[in-house]
Amino acid sequence: MTDALSPASQSTAPPTVATAGDPTAGEVLTAHLTAQATAFLRALPTLRGEPGGRSDEQGEELLRAVRRVGGALHTFAGAMEPGWAQDLRDELRWLLDMLAQEPSHNRRLARLLTTLDSLTRAAAPDRLPAQRGGEPSATGMLAGHPGAAKARALLERQLSVARARIHTSSLQELRSARLHALADRMTLLTGEVPLAASSSAPAREVLLPQAAAALGALAHAAEELPLLRAGAAYNGDARHRLRTGAPLPDADAALGTDDAPWLRVRILVKRARYALEVCRPLLGGQASGTAARLESLSRVLDRHQEAADAASTAAAAARTPRITPATAYVLGVVHADQRLEVEAARYSFGCQWPELRGSDWPDWPVR
Amino acid sequence: MTDALSPASQSTAPPTVATAGDPTAGEVLTAHLTAQATAFLRALPTLRGEPGGRSDEQGEELLRAVRRVGGALHTFAGAMEPGWAQDLRDELRWLLDMLAQEPSHNRRLARLLTTLDSLTRAAAPDRLPAQRGGEPSATGMLAGHPGAAKARALLERQLSVARARIHTSSLQELRSARLHALADRMTLLTGEVPLAASSSAPAREVLLPQAAAALGALAHAAEELPLLRAGAAYNGDARHRLRTGAPLPDADAALGTDDAPWLRVRILVKRARYALEVCRPLLGGQASGTAARLESLSRVLDRHQEAADAASTAAAAARTPRITPATAYVLGVVHADQRLEVEAARYSFGCQWPELRGSDWPDWPVR
Repeated sequence: MTDALSPASQSTAPPTVATAGDPTAGEVLTAHLTAQATAFLRALPTLRGEPGGRSDEQGEELLRAVRRVGGALHTFAGAMEPGWAQDLRDELRWLLDMLAQEPSHNRRLARLLTTLDSLTRAAAPDRLPAQRGGEPSATGMLAGHPGAAKARALLERQLSVARARIHTSSLQELRSARLHALADRMTLLTGEVPLAASSSAPAREVLLPQAAAALGALAHAAEELPLLRAGAAYNGDARHRLRTGAPLPDADAALGTDDAPWLRVRILVKRARYALEVCRPLLGGQASGTAARLESLSRVLDRHQEAADAASTAAAAARTPRITPATAYVLGVVHADQRLEVEAARYSFGCQWPELRGSDWPDWPVR
Repeated sequence: MTDALSPASQSTAPPTVATAGDPTAGEVLTAHLTAQATAFLRALPTLRGEPGGRSDEQGEELLRAVRRVGGALHTFAGAMEPGWAQDLRDELRWLLDMLAQEPSHNRRLARLLTTLDSLTRAAAPDRLPAQRGGEPSATGMLAGHPGAAKARALLERQLSVARARIHTSSLQELRSARLHALADRMTLLTGEVPLAASSSAPAREVLLPQAAAALGALAHAAEELPLLRAGAAYNGDARHRLRTGAPLPDADAALGTDDAPWLRVRILVKRARYALEVCRPLLGGQASGTAARLESLSRVLDRHQEAADAASTAAAAARTPRITPATAYVLGVVHADQRLEVEAARYSFGCQWPELRGSDWPDWPVR
């Protein structure tokens, strides 16, 4: 990405002239967007080619590119033609929402089944009462519980039905006129990025402040989180109480009111991460620690969201008519277990956040 | 306790002669046991006086004395007449097991109802999305859940029935010949403690090593616990999985196999605590930090046991025939929540344990 800078021919009225060897904002942005659009176009045909022949890897590749282009269009909007950037972002958001559903469903099912299996695992007969320091081969809380197999079957059935529906509808969308139009826009992007006048200024002067603003937005939102509480294990004083995530009627929409600011921070972490990727050629490895920490926080908040989704799914499954009390009981345990994963992710975020603030980003915004 | 030393007239063949102002082991033990036996006899009549007129405070006082006499008989057995000490300990253990049931039941019911209320608490309508640093008024996981009220009524009914049964049977035992015989033994103890020959040696030489041995036994058992795992919040890497406490048919016996070593350490903490109380006159405030930390660990492990019991009770209640799935679901959440309290208590123990090892006990046993 760093060595494939294309000429800044798109700039119209340079307010500042970039010196030789010092790339303009337009050059850096174009290099990044072109590379991502190329990746997008490489992955797309496989996805919409033969129905059912979809490769997960290609899907990941496409989602990766969509997220990065969308992030750059948001963070560096000031250096691009505004109407164009907003339109493309909207279309990319639509595609992302559509394509992310199926992998999200797969992860959720895998998570719920792993949880159930872990909770129902029986103790090894020869286990020692306590293994010094190591992980004890503990009995699952639901070992031998009569509802476990039924709950597993119920979750598998419900999620498989939902996934099949999503798969069918996303295959239709992949062949829609809307997607064709989006693909055309991405093809144009590999040749020319519609830039604003300011993009002919040195990248260092235009893009670094915008990336810093993305980090600032993240810092602002993260520090509004109840980090003192989340950063103390088991909510401080090692006294825990499972809260949040009141189950709503629709499992997919069922995110507790308490979750919203965390989900917002997840998006801001990703935006900051992608902004740093765009600026990487300008930083010469300087903010690599910051980038690594953002990646780690991003993983923690992905886990937060997946666990919150899984908890809602378990709660919704428990409202299925005519299930047995034993099945419902197991789903209650799974719900609580996943809300605990949510708490654990928040705790992890609370521990890692100060490290990000103290990392090697040159102009960390001070509040 | 320290200034009420009775004469060491019970000692028979002194192997070492205590110097003036340096109390013998017999003197220190007699002072302690006499004081505790007196407290026991003061509390007993109220307890067995009028049925139903039992005072909780008197019961606490009596249990306190029973635990301390039993602990001293165990730890300082070498300074007392062996057969006598063992017989009395057995009888005190019987009384303790009998009397501790009702308060334990009361605490368990209170804990389960508090848990349910906390999980079903609805969000305040005017709450802010995130309160900086403070405790957010979060929505309970079960807010508005149809099974919550039924689960509450079920737990209340089952525990009240069990408590009434325990109350009746313990009132009978309090008027039994066995208790009369025990009361007679305690009356004798206020006058004369049957000591061994070694008790005429200086208390410092006899009792301090025995108290150190009690701390050593605790250290040995505690360091066999999976402290690395428990000491890392959410079982390390902030990845949690609810384990242990496989529900057994009888709720009162339902303690997970994983819990046993922790419950054993709870007993050893109490023994060490009571041993330090006996030695207090010899230490002149020296090990007051150790004593305070033992008290804190004791509270943590009480919480561990109460939560483990409550989890088993919820699991057992969920096996009640003909309950609704919604009720069972809520009991599953409560079970998981209480197992989480168990985890939180272990984490707290793992954090506090190193502080005890580094505290001001003069001869901390090195492993």
